[in-house]
This record gives sequence, structure tokens and C-alpha cells, in this order.
Amino acid sequence: MTDPVFEAAFQAAQKSLSEGGIPIGAALARGGEIVATGHNERVQQGDPIAHGEMSALRAAGRQRSYRDTVLYTTLAPCAMCTGTIIQFKIPKVVVGEAETFPGEFDLLRSRGVEVVVLNDERCVDMMRNFQRDHAELWAEDIAK
Amino acid sequence: MTDPVFEAAFQAAQKSLSEGGIPIGAALARGGEIVATGHNERVQQGDPIAHGEMSALRAAGRQRSYRDTVLYTTLAPCAMCTGTIIQFKIPKVVVGEAETFPGEFDLLRSRGVEVVVLNDERCVDMMRNFQRDHAELWAEDIAK
Repeated sequence: MTDPVFEAAFQAAQKSLSEGGIPIGAALARGGEIVATGHNERVQQGDPIAHGEMSALRAAGRQRSYRDTVLYTTLAPCAMCTGTIIQFKIPKVVVGEAETFPGEFDLLRSRGVEVVVLNDERCVDMMRNFQRDHAELWAEDIAK
Repeated sequence: MTDPVFEAAFQAAQKSLSEGGIPIGAALARGGEIVATGHNERVQQGDPIAHGEMSALRAAGRQRSYRDTVLYTTLAPCAMCTGTIIQFKIPKVVVGEAETFPGEFDLLRSRGVEVVVLNDERCVDMMRNFQRDHAELWAEDIAK
């Protein structure tokens, strides 16, 4: 049984892929309800800070507190998104996969953020195919 | 003699203040030339991820590399902006002041980022006045 919030993050990633964008999606939830979703928009908007997690947080708009929220993302959060989770005091992150990109789990955990990894094979396949077919774009997105 | 790139960051902060926004500005430079400037846009755009540094990076658009850039900011970078500097591999940050907000200098330096603090009294005064007059908004911006 899949989590509907995670499915929304996955659908956002697939939407980005269908637009020619980088297939990483995210969703912010409160009490199991979706506050906002987002996906990487480097290609679509020419916006280098619009990783999936950042786009979901932007779409959620101003919030007085994130302490009762959970951030879902299809891929392990990079340093930017990790720093944002720490700054916003989001207590928990649910991650689709960390096989194709390791993210910053040590930093997240050192600041008290709970990290759950789903090892979702659909996410692994999606990113593996993307990284193979768009190596230059992927390198740009992670400043490799 | 003030650095013209830092002055551009300071002017961006003052522009934000004049708009009723949070007075934090930034500028990205390459070879001493300004690539882009930005300021906090929480109030103006309702965008919680638009700290000054993030807005400048967004305005700069897609860049293949940041290794030859310097990021200037009027206030010590928070965890979000610190994570972004690390992720984008920006090697050097010039900071107006760190008296009114400590930022994440230890994290920046632990990842090899050079941090220069100007101790600019104009920046200190600007933030001190703002934090006093808009305590709720400031608390929201740093998720206090």
C-alpha cells in the first residue's frame, strides 16, 4: 500500500519528465494532507534553485511553522534542500530513493531530522534512465 | 573604499526595505563583475525560499559552474543559503554582518567555503531596526 502523499511527489516528478524537465518531485504534508507539491524546474523555468523540494515549499507559500509537517521527495535531498529542511525546522523527510544520489543524510540526522528511505524501484529506474540519457543536464543540476 | 559588488547587495536590501520587505540583499559576482543581484521576497512575492542569496542565484539563471564566483550578502547566510552555497560549490562568501544573526559559518568553513565578514555598521543598524520593528515577520523568516 503506497502513501498517497508520496504518490503525489512521484506524479510531480513524472510530470516534470513529460515536460522535458528533471524528474524529481516533492510534496509537503501536514497531518497526512498535502499542503503543496512541486518538481524540479531548472529546465522549465531556467531556475537553478527550483529543486523539487524547493518548488514544493515555494508553492506552499508562507507558513508560520513547519514543525508539524513532513516533506516527501522522490530523491535524496542535496545540500541546498537539506539546508532548507534544517532552516525551516521540518522534522521528517520521506525519500523515494538514495541509490542514484546519496544526498546529505548525515547532515540531516545530525540536526535531528528523521529520514525515512522507501527504496522505491520506480524512482530508481526513473533517475537511472534520466542520468544516462541526460548526463550533462544532470551534472549541471548537481553542480558536478 | 567599499566594494561595488557589496554596495549592490546593500542597495538591494534597501530596495526591499522600501517595498515593505525584509532588508536582506545579495549579489553574485564573477571576476569582480556582478552577475545578478537579489533581495528577500517573502513579503513581496509570498515566497519563503526567496532569501536574498536565493533570489540572486535565481536571477543569475542557469550557470554551468559557480567555482569562479563570489556570493555577497548583507547578512550571515542561514542554513538554507549555506546549503545552497555548498551545493553550488561557490568557493567564497562576503558577508555584511553576523551580529544580528549568526548564520552557519562553521558549516560553511567545514565544507571549504571561505567566509569574509565586513562588520558593516550600516547592515547592523538596518537589521537591528528591522528586527525591532517587525519582530513577528523576522521570526517567521528564520522559522524561530
